[in-house]
Formats: sequence, structure tokens, C-alpha cells
Amino acid sequence: MSFCDEIWQDVEPLRRSILAHPFLAELAAGTLPPESFRHYIVQDSLYLAEYSRALALAAARAPTAAGRLEFSDGAKVAVQVEEALHQAFFASFGVTAQMAANSEATPACLGYTSYLSALAATRSYEELIAAILPCFWVYWEVGCAIKPRAAAPNPYSAWIDTYAAPSFGEATARVRALVDEAASNAGTGTRRAMADAFRIATRFEWMFWDSAYHRATWPI
Amino acid sequence: MSFCDEIWQDVEPLRRSILAHPFLAELAAGTLPPESFRHYIVQDSLYLAEYSRALALAAARAPTAAGRLEFSDGAKVAVQVEEALHQAFFASFGVTAQMAANSEATPACLGYTSYLSALAATRSYEELIAAILPCFWVYWEVGCAIKPRAAAPNPYSAWIDTYAAPSFGEATARVRALVDEAASNAGTGTRRAMADAFRIATRFEWMFWDSAYHRATWPI
Amino acid sequence: MSFCDEIWQDVEPLRRSILAHPFLAELAAGTLPPESFRHYIVQDSLYLAEYSRALALAAARAPTAAGRLEFSDGAKVAVQVEEALHQAFFASFGVTAQMAANSEATPACLGYTSYLSALAATRSYEELIAAILPCFWVYWEVGCAIKPRAAAPNPYSAWIDTYAAPSFGEATARVRALVDEAASNAGTGTRRAMADAFRIATRFEWMFWDSAYHRATWPI
Amino acid sequence: MSFCDEIWQDVEPLRRSILAHPFLAELAAGTLPPESFRHYIVQDSLYLAEYSRALALAAARAPTAAGRLEFSDGAKVAVQVEEALHQAFFASFGVTAQMAANSEATPACLGYTSYLSALAATRSYEELIAAILPCFWVYWEVGCAIKPRAAAPNPYSAWIDTYAAPSFGEATARVRALVDEAASNAGTGTRRAMADAFRIATRFEWMFWDSAYHRATWPI
Repeated sequence: MSFCDEIWQDVEPLRRSILAHPFLAELAAGTLPPESFRHYIVQDSLYLAEYSRALALAAARAPTAAGRLEFSDGAKVAVQVEEALHQAFFASFGVTAQMAANSEATPACLGYTSYLSALAATRSYEELIAAILPCFWVYWEVGCAIKPRAAAPNPYSAWIDTYAAPSFGEATARVRALVDEAASNAGTGTRRAMADAFRIATRFEWMFWDSAYHRATWPI
Repeated sequence: MSFCDEIWQDVEPLRRSILAHPFLAELAAGTLPPESFRHYIVQDSLYLAEYSRALALAAARAPTAAGRLEFSDGAKVAVQVEEALHQAFFASFGVTAQMAANSEATPACLGYTSYLSALAATRSYEELIAAILPCFWVYWEVGCAIKPRAAAPNPYSAWIDTYAAPSFGEATARVRALVDEAASNAGTGTRRAMADAFRIATRFEWMFWDSAYHRATWPI
Repeated sequence: MSFCDEIWQDVEPLRRSILAHPFLAELAAGTLPPESFRHYIVQDSLYLAEYSRALALAAARAPTAAGRLEFSDGAKVAVQVEEALHQAFFASFGVTAQMAANSEATPACLGYTSYLSALAATRSYEELIAAILPCFWVYWEVGCAIKPRAAAPNPYSAWIDTYAAPSFGEATARVRALVDEAASNAGTGTRRAMADAFRIATRFEWMFWDSAYHRATWPI
Repeated sequence: MSFCDEIWQDVEPLRRSILAHPFLAELAAGTLPPESFRHYIVQDSLYLAEYSRALALAAARAPTAAGRLEFSDGAKVAVQVEEALHQAFFASFGVTAQMAANSEATPACLGYTSYLSALAATRSYEELIAAILPCFWVYWEVGCAIKPRAAAPNPYSAWIDTYAAPSFGEATARVRALVDEAASNAGTGTRRAMADAFRIATRFEWMFWDSAYHRATWPI
């Protein structure tokens, strides 16, 4: 059983909560209120800008050329997705440039992305990439789980297709392999810290969707 | 009007909400439930460990010897306070080493500290120190506001005295001077980003106390 | 006159020393001893691995999506060039995998790449990208200067073509634009620090070639 | 045999070259030309400003409170030594504020300090603190070796006393303990990288003195 298989199993309760979350159930059914999706894509756009930075920080610390290549490519793709894909969704769902520019990251979004970059600044490369992984792997699981049961037609089919695409699964597998490789060279304490980081990032995944579902704002 | 005076005025509504928060009102009256204070000091201990890191990151980037000295000293003092003062509070309020070790940072605590270190990793020194300032200045304002009206005797008097101490006010003034100096050399965009960072960190101050008051845990 | 034009003019004496350096004169004439070129490409391979990290660190701090895109792409390309192009040169010039693996960065190479990453760790984004620029711009100037006067056939023509390629010139122009944009938003002190960083990196360019020409090793 | 004992033994040839270097032989004899010492203290002052940053970066990443305390204190002391002690030496040896301000770090100084901060930006905490150690340990060895055989009176006795002081030996021992602790939790690859970093920093120690002895400047 690989290290990734272990930490994936550890977060099984969290993953079940994510798959059962009404945001995703309604998205699959095509009944999610557009307001909730709008909240989500605006926050996701803010998320991707910061996720790109976290990936770039991982690229800067990767011990192998394979790691530098994967994470610098990931950083680039995150910007491209932020720009291209989101512009498409923004248009389809009526998010104006003005609305996007006036938005600020919610506590869930800011907490999640800050957590990733803070790991880069104060913890090890191993913990950083363990925390980077859920955004790939959880989305891939969600995409694969939703796609076969999604209502057709579905206003959110383009979103679903993105994360159920084989190329996204392959990117997930490559990042997983880098995490496994890092774990295999690490001491016990680092492996435990990696598992913690993976779990905390997975929690933030749930919170991100929950926050969108409730169109959360700052409490003050 | 100095830059710090401006950003201090900008957050006046937040500061009023902090001063009026039941956590601080009850702390001043000596009626705050010990459970809430226990939650607070355990989280504060976790906070200080990370705040020390953020201060160290500021020391690493400070353009002047005065800045390097202030922030490396701050990083050191944060560890010392984490260790010495907290051990005292832990004993007085019945927090065992076991309880402390089993605690994990709440979303408010993790979000706040991650935000600071993330600024160090992905933004400018100027924004970082603007976000570092509220933890000094807001505590100094709180200490000064509570001390004269605190009930006597008060189980929390040692805590109140710490943040109303002239030496703490002097440290606050020195950090403020470093922020003013940084702002005076910065372009408009950086000054705007500094004001945003200061406001977000001040929000987190409110959330930290609010989280302690409600003995918050993770939603999942 | 743009900021980049100014700092480019400031280093004119250094650029003339580079263009007149026997390493490049002999490379253009096709008379450079293969041992010197071997030294150069092995060091360049070590350089690119670290330059990729510095570019990734710039991507992590870039304030705009354009900057994040350019520098994360640059980080990726640096790894690809390190791997693909160099493997080709290694084969042509008889550098075995063993020789490459046993090589260590010379003082010139280690000093240059460390300088770039140290700026990322302790100085501003603006200074970092100013120091990143010479590796683009100086190589582009060298490629353009050598190409028309290179002997034909020339054992080094593939190398010359790489840096005289229009696509390389376009990448240089995009990085230059990012430096100009950063300078236009910066205060006087930051602009002066940018000019210094640009000059120091240009010096390191000269030292890198000079070090290869003399097949330098550590003095101890 | 502790990890530190091993890496200390690995660099024995380098240490012998340092102890035998004419800079130190002449300093012990009191015959070192003041011009060489002036060069040294100006560069050392530039070095300490950057060494303080590297120590602060180590404090930001230290996994234990003991590590955060030691390195933030070290960062603070480096600034204090830069300021106080050096002002004294500057006055005694006729370095004016103007001379100091006009000085720029030599390749040896810039290479060494950049190497340390670059490790902080692109490698692990373990490698960073292994590279931080020689500046403590080598100076302590040098201080202890020179003190008993130093000519009396000696214009450089204050310098010698600083590094032969028991308190400096104690600081060295504490940093060594942190390196040993880090090594004991690390995998084989990290321990090898730590040994490399320790060796490279020790080399830079030799180069720093050699550079001062020859009053080196940039080659261009």
C-alpha cells in the first residue's frame, strides 16, 4: 500500500462528506442555484491565482527535474485555467469583470490558499506537495463520481467534463507519484506531517464547497 | 497624518467591534468562563509559534538593520512568551501538557497565521509587516482600554497587565514606525496593498476572539 | 527612455567585455576547444536547474497573471532545455551521464544561481526579476551578434541558433516588459536596487563565460 | 560518533587549510597589514547583515521552539555584532562610514551569503542549518587555536577574544545540537545533502579569508 493510498484512506470520511455535499449533489442534478455557482467560480478564480503561486513554490523546491517540470507546468496551467476557462464560465453565468474585480476571497478560500503558501514558507517541501495534492485528487474523484450520474442536459456539464477528463486524471497520477516518492525518502516525522497537511487541505476542500453553497461572506 | 494613522482609522469599525466583543467585556469583568479562556490561551500558544515564524520572515527581508533587529527580537520574544508566560497560564487555568499537545489550530487561528506566512511567501515585505502590526497594536489598544475598567480582583489580571505594559506599547510604536517608513518609500499600489493586509489581519483579530468565545472547532 | 533601456545602457561596458570575450570570439570562429565548451555545457546544465527555481520563485510573487504565466512557463522551459537540449549537446561533445553527475557547480555558477535565489528569499520581487533578465537579454544580444559572423560550418551552430532565434527574442521582450512594468510602479529606492541587481547578474554572465574559458574549478 | 562529528571530520583538510592560512597566521602574530584587516571587517559587516537574514530564515522553518529561539536570537545577535562590535573595529582601524557605505560585497562574500539564503529558498531546513554551522564552528576553532599563541600585545586581540569566548563556544554547541537533531530525523538523501552544504560553506569560509588577504575585488 503506497503512502498516497494510506493518506487517501485516512480521509475517507471527509471524502464521503464531500461527495455527499448538497453543492455537488445539486450540481450533478443541474439544480444548483446559479447564484451558488457564481459564488463558486469567482472564488475558484481567486483560488487558482494563489494555487498557481503555491505550485510555483513547489517547483522551486522540487529535488528532481520531474518535480520541477510538473509543478512549473501546473503553475502555468493554473493561470491559464484561471484566465481562459473562467472567462468562459464568467460569461455563461453572468459574472461581469466588475463583479469579479470587486470580489474578495472568503475565509474558506483565503484560509486554504494561505495554508498552502504558508507551508511553503515555514514547513518542508514534502508537506507542501502533500497539501497541494487534494485539489487534484479530490476534484478528479468528484469529476469521475458526478459525470456518470449527471443530469443531461446540465448547465454545469463543462465544469464536470473538465475534472472527469483523462488528462486531469493523468496529472493527478503524476502529482501522486511525486508525493509517494517524497514520502519514501522522508523520515517518520515528515511522513506524519505530510499526512496532516493532506488531511487539512482535504478539509479545506469541503469548506470551499460548503462556503460556496451558503454563499458565505466574512463574519465582520 | 501618518500612513499608520490612516490605516488605523480605516479599521475603526473593526476595532470598535473588537473592544465591544463579549469575550473582552467578560474578561474585563472577570466573568469570562474559564473554558473560553482555556480555549483562547491554547490557541494563542499555537498562534505565537507561527507568529514567531512570520516575524522571522519579516526580519529576513527587512531593508534596514533596525528592521532586522526589531523583527528578529520579536520572533525571539514570541517564542519566549509562548513558552514562559503560557506555561504560567496553562498551570493557572488547568491546561495540561497533554491537552495542549492534542490541540489543533482552529480555522481562525490557522487562517490568521497562514495568512501572515503566505504574505511572506507570495507578497511584498511591506504587506507582510502591515499584516504583522495589528497583533501588536490591537492588543495594546485592548490592554489600555480594559486595564482601567477591569474588575479587581480579576482572574485575568496578569493577561491584562501584559498588554497594557508600557514596554509593549513601545514595541508597538517601533513596529508602527517601521510600517510608516516602508509606506513612505512605497508606490501607490503597494500602499493600497498594505492597507488591505492591515485590515484583513485586524479582521482575523476579531475572529480569533470570537472563535475563543464560542470555543469553535472545525466544521468537519 | 524605458527603465530597461537605462539599465541596459548602464552595463554597456560589461556587455562589451562579454561580446569581446575570447570564449565567444572562438565559439563564433568555431575554434573554441571542445574541453571549454564541455565545461560550459555541464555548468550550464547545473545553472538551468537553479535558474528554473529562481523563475518559479518569481512566478510565485508576480503581481499579475501575465507575470505568473511568463515565469512559470520560463521555469518549465528551463527544465526542458536542461533536459532535452543538453542531452543533445552532451552526446555531441562527449559528456557522459557519469561526467555530468560527478560535476559540481563552479564558484561562478554557484555564486550566480545562489544570488538569484537569495534575492527571492531576502529582497523584493522587483530586484529578483531585474536579476533574472540578463540571462535572457545578454544571451539574445550574444546570439544576434555572433550568428551573422559565425564561421560555417561551425561545431557550435546549434547553440548559436538557439539564442538567435526570434522566439528567444520574443521571450526576452516579454520579460523586459515585466521588468519595465515593475519599475514603473516602484519607488526610487527599489528602482536603484533593481539597477544594482541587473548589473550584478550581468557581471555574473561575464564570469560564467570566463570561468568556462579557463575551465575553472574551486580554489580549494 | 554524531552526525556533526562526521561532517567535521570530512572537512578536516579544509579546516587545516584555514588554520594554516597566512591571514590567520599573520593575525595571530599581529603582523597582518591593517589594509587586509580593514578589507576583512568591511566585508564581515556586509556578511553579517546577510547572515542575519539566513538565520532568520532558519528560525522561520525550525520545527521546535528551541530552534526558533536559537536562530531568532542568532539573527538578532548578528545585527548587534554588525552594529556595535564593527563600529568599534571601524573606528580603531580607520574605516569611515563613507568607506563602509561605498563598499560592495566581494564575490567570496556575496557567493557565501547568497548560498545560505538560496538554500533557504530552494532546499530544506536541514541543509540550511548545516550550511549555517561552519560560521559558528570554524570561527570557534579558529578563536581557540589562535588565542593561546597570539602575540601580546596584538592589535587584533579584541577580534581573537570574541571568537575564543566561552559564550561563543556555547552558541556553537547549541547550533551543533540542532544540526544533530535535524540529521537524526532525516533520511539518507537529506543527510548527504547536509554534509555537502556543510562542506561548501566551510570552503566559503576559507575563500572569505583568502579574499580578505588578497584584498580581492570583482574581476570585472
